[in-house]
Amino acid sequence: MFKKSLMLLACLMSFGFAANMDANKSDALNLNVVKNIKVAHKMSDLSKSCVECHAKETPGIVADWKNSRHAHVGVSCMDCHSVNADNPMASVKVHPKDSNNHVSMLVSPKTCAKCHENEVEESVKSGHARGAMQMYANPAMVKLMYHYEGMDHPEYKMAPDATGCTQCHGTVIKLDADHKPTKETWPNYGIGNVYPDGGVGNCKSCHSAHTFSIAEARKPAACASCHLGPDHPDIEIFNNSMHGHIYNSEAHKWNFDAAPDTWDVPDFRAPTCAACHMSGVGETTTTHNVSRRLKWNLWGVSSKLRTAGDEQAAVVYEKTGKLTIGTPLAGHPNGPEAARAEMKLVCKVCHTSTHTDNFFIMGDKQVELYNVYSAEATKMLEELKAKNLLLEDAWSDEFQDVYYHMWHHEGRRMRQGALMGGPDYSHWHGVFEVKNDIRKLRKIYKERIESGKVQ
Amino acid sequence: MFKKSLMLLACLMSFGFAANMDANKSDALNLNVVKNIKVAHKMSDLSKSCVECHAKETPGIVADWKNSRHAHVGVSCMDCHSVNADNPMASVKVHPKDSNNHVSMLVSPKTCAKCHENEVEESVKSGHARGAMQMYANPAMVKLMYHYEGMDHPEYKMAPDATGCTQCHGTVIKLDADHKPTKETWPNYGIGNVYPDGGVGNCKSCHSAHTFSIAEARKPAACASCHLGPDHPDIEIFNNSMHGHIYNSEAHKWNFDAAPDTWDVPDFRAPTCAACHMSGVGETTTTHNVSRRLKWNLWGVSSKLRTAGDEQAAVVYEKTGKLTIGTPLAGHPNGPEAARAEMKLVCKVCHTSTHTDNFFIMGDKQVELYNVYSAEATKMLEELKAKNLLLEDAWSDEFQDVYYHMWHHEGRRMRQGALMGGPDYSHWHGVFEVKNDIRKLRKIYKERIESGKVQ
Amino acid sequence: MFKKSLMLLACLMSFGFAANMDANKSDALNLNVVKNIKVAHKMSDLSKSCVECHAKETPGIVADWKNSRHAHVGVSCMDCHSVNADNPMASVKVHPKDSNNHVSMLVSPKTCAKCHENEVEESVKSGHARGAMQMYANPAMVKLMYHYEGMDHPEYKMAPDATGCTQCHGTVIKLDADHKPTKETWPNYGIGNVYPDGGVGNCKSCHSAHTFSIAEARKPAACASCHLGPDHPDIEIFNNSMHGHIYNSEAHKWNFDAAPDTWDVPDFRAPTCAACHMSGVGETTTTHNVSRRLKWNLWGVSSKLRTAGDEQAAVVYEKTGKLTIGTPLAGHPNGPEAARAEMKLVCKVCHTSTHTDNFFIMGDKQVELYNVYSAEATKMLEELKAKNLLLEDAWSDEFQDVYYHMWHHEGRRMRQGALMGGPDYSHWHGVFEVKNDIRKLRKIYKERIESGKVQ
Repeated sequence: MFKKSLMLLACLMSFGFAANMDANKSDALNLNVVKNIKVAHKMSDLSKSCVECHAKETPGIVADWKNSRHAHVGVSCMDCHSVNADNPMASVKVHPKDSNNHVSMLVSPKTCAKCHENEVEESVKSGHARGAMQMYANPAMVKLMYHYEGMDHPEYKMAPDATGCTQCHGTVIKLDADHKPTKETWPNYGIGNVYPDGGVGNCKSCHSAHTFSIAEARKPAACASCHLGPDHPDIEIFNNSMHGHIYNSEAHKWNFDAAPDTWDVPDFRAPTCAACHMSGVGETTTTHNVSRRLKWNLWGVSSKLRTAGDEQAAVVYEKTGKLTIGTPLAGHPNGPEAARAEMKLVCKVCHTSTHTDNFFIMGDKQVELYNVYSAEATKMLEELKAKNLLLEDAWSDEFQDVYYHMWHHEGRRMRQGALMGGPDYSHWHGVFEVKNDIRKLRKIYKERIESGKVQ
Repeated sequence: MFKKSLMLLACLMSFGFAANMDANKSDALNLNVVKNIKVAHKMSDLSKSCVECHAKETPGIVADWKNSRHAHVGVSCMDCHSVNADNPMASVKVHPKDSNNHVSMLVSPKTCAKCHENEVEESVKSGHARGAMQMYANPAMVKLMYHYEGMDHPEYKMAPDATGCTQCHGTVIKLDADHKPTKETWPNYGIGNVYPDGGVGNCKSCHSAHTFSIAEARKPAACASCHLGPDHPDIEIFNNSMHGHIYNSEAHKWNFDAAPDTWDVPDFRAPTCAACHMSGVGETTTTHNVSRRLKWNLWGVSSKLRTAGDEQAAVVYEKTGKLTIGTPLAGHPNGPEAARAEMKLVCKVCHTSTHTDNFFIMGDKQVELYNVYSAEATKMLEELKAKNLLLEDAWSDEFQDVYYHMWHHEGRRMRQGALMGGPDYSHWHGVFEVKNDIRKLRKIYKERIESGKVQ
Repeated sequence: MFKKSLMLLACLMSFGFAANMDANKSDALNLNVVKNIKVAHKMSDLSKSCVECHAKETPGIVADWKNSRHAHVGVSCMDCHSVNADNPMASVKVHPKDSNNHVSMLVSPKTCAKCHENEVEESVKSGHARGAMQMYANPAMVKLMYHYEGMDHPEYKMAPDATGCTQCHGTVIKLDADHKPTKETWPNYGIGNVYPDGGVGNCKSCHSAHTFSIAEARKPAACASCHLGPDHPDIEIFNNSMHGHIYNSEAHKWNFDAAPDTWDVPDFRAPTCAACHMSGVGETTTTHNVSRRLKWNLWGVSSKLRTAGDEQAAVVYEKTGKLTIGTPLAGHPNGPEAARAEMKLVCKVCHTSTHTDNFFIMGDKQVELYNVYSAEATKMLEELKAKNLLLEDAWSDEFQDVYYHMWHHEGRRMRQGALMGGPDYSHWHGVFEVKNDIRKLRKIYKERIESGKVQ
């Protein structure tokens, strides 16, 4: 469990450009290290000037940083914000005024990776990495955002995307003539941002700026600002689960500050989102690949096993500059059963194998029951389509509207509720509604087939 | 208020089988008791072997127990898990391997009652005790779970029940040939489990294993994992109430650890679910009969006074082995006005009688207003039924579907919102929707009566 | 930022009637003040008798008060509850029994203003002040509460109002022959109560009795018991935002007790409701006028700029005794751009101007996009009305029902979600539903226009 506990330390040692460190020696465990790190606390004059001015201009940022682990180990403003003049995100003018320094307002995972290489690499292999790309590579999604919701309005059509989708999914950030991000693409806290420097992802989605706290990201609230709502009510499911019940009644007494791979019981009594999906709990190793422990893709029209290994969206983008819908079946590199086995290692910390096995057998059955509903609905949809009995405007077409909700909302809830122990979501918000949805679809289908007309 | 404060102590003294206690003397209040209890800390060799092995196998369980009151007073693994070989839940093989000991993975309230007799007795008199039984004794519920939702699918039909209903209601736990609980019936954290040893209920639903904390059960989160959602949004109503407002802003500073019957203001500034419904607050005495302080049954098709005294489901089951729907009008042994009077003793701790009386008068009126809606809807339903103007598949029949929602969802919210001070639930999620439901019902009714046809 | 930090102190000094204070000298900052305040701790015999008796009768109230700032500075029971015999709220009988004192169970902002004059004055200038009045001055609202929801039932028609609307909006409190508040009008925790003594508002809505804590009112939970639900899910939006994400993961470590106008970063790391809308953060000054920093009225059928300055409802009521719908476009005295500029001063504490400007530009576009939808819907409504193609019972009329929801529920969520950074509310619960609503309206409109009939 202490596999990586020295990683931050080690990586700081190799953080050559980080100001006044004297050396990057291999004696990482003797007292000299402490001295070296101490030296790093002497901020560069440039960073000092940042802090002095921004303590007045944007005191919240400085206050955050002062209490961050970054500040404690001597990582300061310019270590992340100073960029070469030819960086696409570099400020047109030097900053501060009297320097020869260029800054970037935006900091992409490329910068974070200078120290946190493993974390960024893992993250890019996960579904998080295609958050933004999958939207803009999908014509149906683009049409939903700009055409249907934005009404193709010349002035307002970008607003639903900017105030909605991108805030969680991220966006492909564009810069204006002044090298500042455009209003349509920033600010957002989306997990799948594509940055002008080619970086993909967004560490700040979970480790919010400018403290970048590990404790924060281990709490459900860090996931909850995106993983909520009708289409993936994950925080609601967690609160509905016995895990959430325990968390909500006593987590204020738990320890969230343990080093990576050391955070384990008795630091907590019930797992959080991170504990199951990311942390090095029990016999597992910490990963930022949130898809790795998932057996199923539960957000698709039908549930499918995650057989595709690592997510490829960022790789393709780096090679070709193309936005793709990525790898919906991304998961564990060794396939879905390896994913499930790794997840069970977390369960095992507190539960017997009978408990865990029974739980997943019945959860999987609920997932497969959904597929029975889904197959019937899709068959009807395809037949109506073949017979020209669907409207072009899907949102005016009751069949397509119910079909969408049965899949995208009710059907996800039914499946995710089952596999995360949230009975109200498996049942009331899930299969209970799916069962009515299929009845509506059958009725409309029958009417259209019998009448040969849409209405 | 200190009526029962020595109960745990006293009952531990009588806990003869609990390992190394020297004696069960009557001098419960002198220093010898301390010695006796101290002696109990010497765990049996068997329990020691449990802890040693499970600290590696399932460290979460051991960590929980180490910090529990149980561990502090010397109650350890085998005190709950060791059973006679002829116990239906006994492991087929001895465990641990080299012992002559049999264990049960399941621990029913029968075991808890060995020390916590009053709590289990009270619990069995409450509606909680029929949580599971009422489902399986009700053909409509069974049909909903397996036929409608499960589609009578040979492989998947049990999934909606196992991942949904049972997780809160509990189930009738079945064992396989290996004496292990079947996947269809366990794990769950349902409050009304019927165990193979005849025990009914589930202490762990609120006092989660393996700390079994009293503080946990006093917090709304302990109730919230079941009392939520469209049909009984009790945690949502609490959060909507002034009580919830106060709790959510400052409860982290309150004291939840006081002994039973001593927990009272100023330990807290606003009541939690437990404080009103269970705790020995003010002039009341702690009870685990959650139905005792309830004047009304608010979950039925129409609101009825709770005139039936103690819940009988567990009694009938013990005598006859039959699963029944139990006693929907279970409440205070002295009737609904005694229930209300006891509840008002809690209110009185902080509120004047004018405040409390006015609150309940108007709340009761909202409950009775619902009955006006309900009576009209039921009259229409019965007339349609008599005239053969209902579909057999209720969920394909718009009248029956709206009727169900008006009762089971909107109507409960209207009533529970009113009597727990949650205005958004009394109004927006309640009567505001009920008023539209009745209009839909009238329209469909009129069409069917006039046309003599269902569609 | 320390502009008002001595206000409480200063106002206490002028609190002449508050019992045993020796003097109200101008040397507010020397040690005599401490002595004077200390003297005030000697409660009057009357207040002592309150405390003695109520410690038994309603111990929660006394416990609250004991820990309040009021108790610490010597403000006790009778300072707020003792009134002249001719006060309309005065108890008919003297209280306590053997005194010549009259008390009022109700305490209106008029009493609070004796010390907290600025706060009450600011509050009255905000939309909060018309909370109750706007309901009773609006025939449509009165009809909704009593006629539609209450079914004009002689016994129950007031219940929806009393258990619903008034609990947040407040009511016009009426007294019975015994000078006690009537059950139809009290208790409630509504923000816009109109008291029999002419006081308007309700300090206790946010600073709950009897601690009246400043820390409480700074937390989202204080707003959340009213600002929730389908029509203004403000707490849900907050939880969905990055601000909520941060608050929910670490606020238990923040400092909420700082004096007014001194509460600022690093006391907190992300703003709460109060921080943005009320507190003296950064270069702003604390205000209880919650409308002051708002550019838009986002609750109306269409979004309008807040051009009307201070709310007038309470002023009109004081002058004429008339209940009016007040000033829906109340906002900053210098207009909507001044409001936005003041709000941006809060953002500036942590965000760059590019961040803040971009955020509001896109938020405003979403607000204006809603107006495009709203204008089309209203045009159809008016045409149908002109052609007599609307039902009189709006709730039986699908067009009017969808129209209402598109505005009052979905449309508010779309706009408030956008301007408070809650993407799920801007999108899924907002424009995604609005887009479908407009399609339903177009369909019904077309049918009615073409057929010339309502059904």
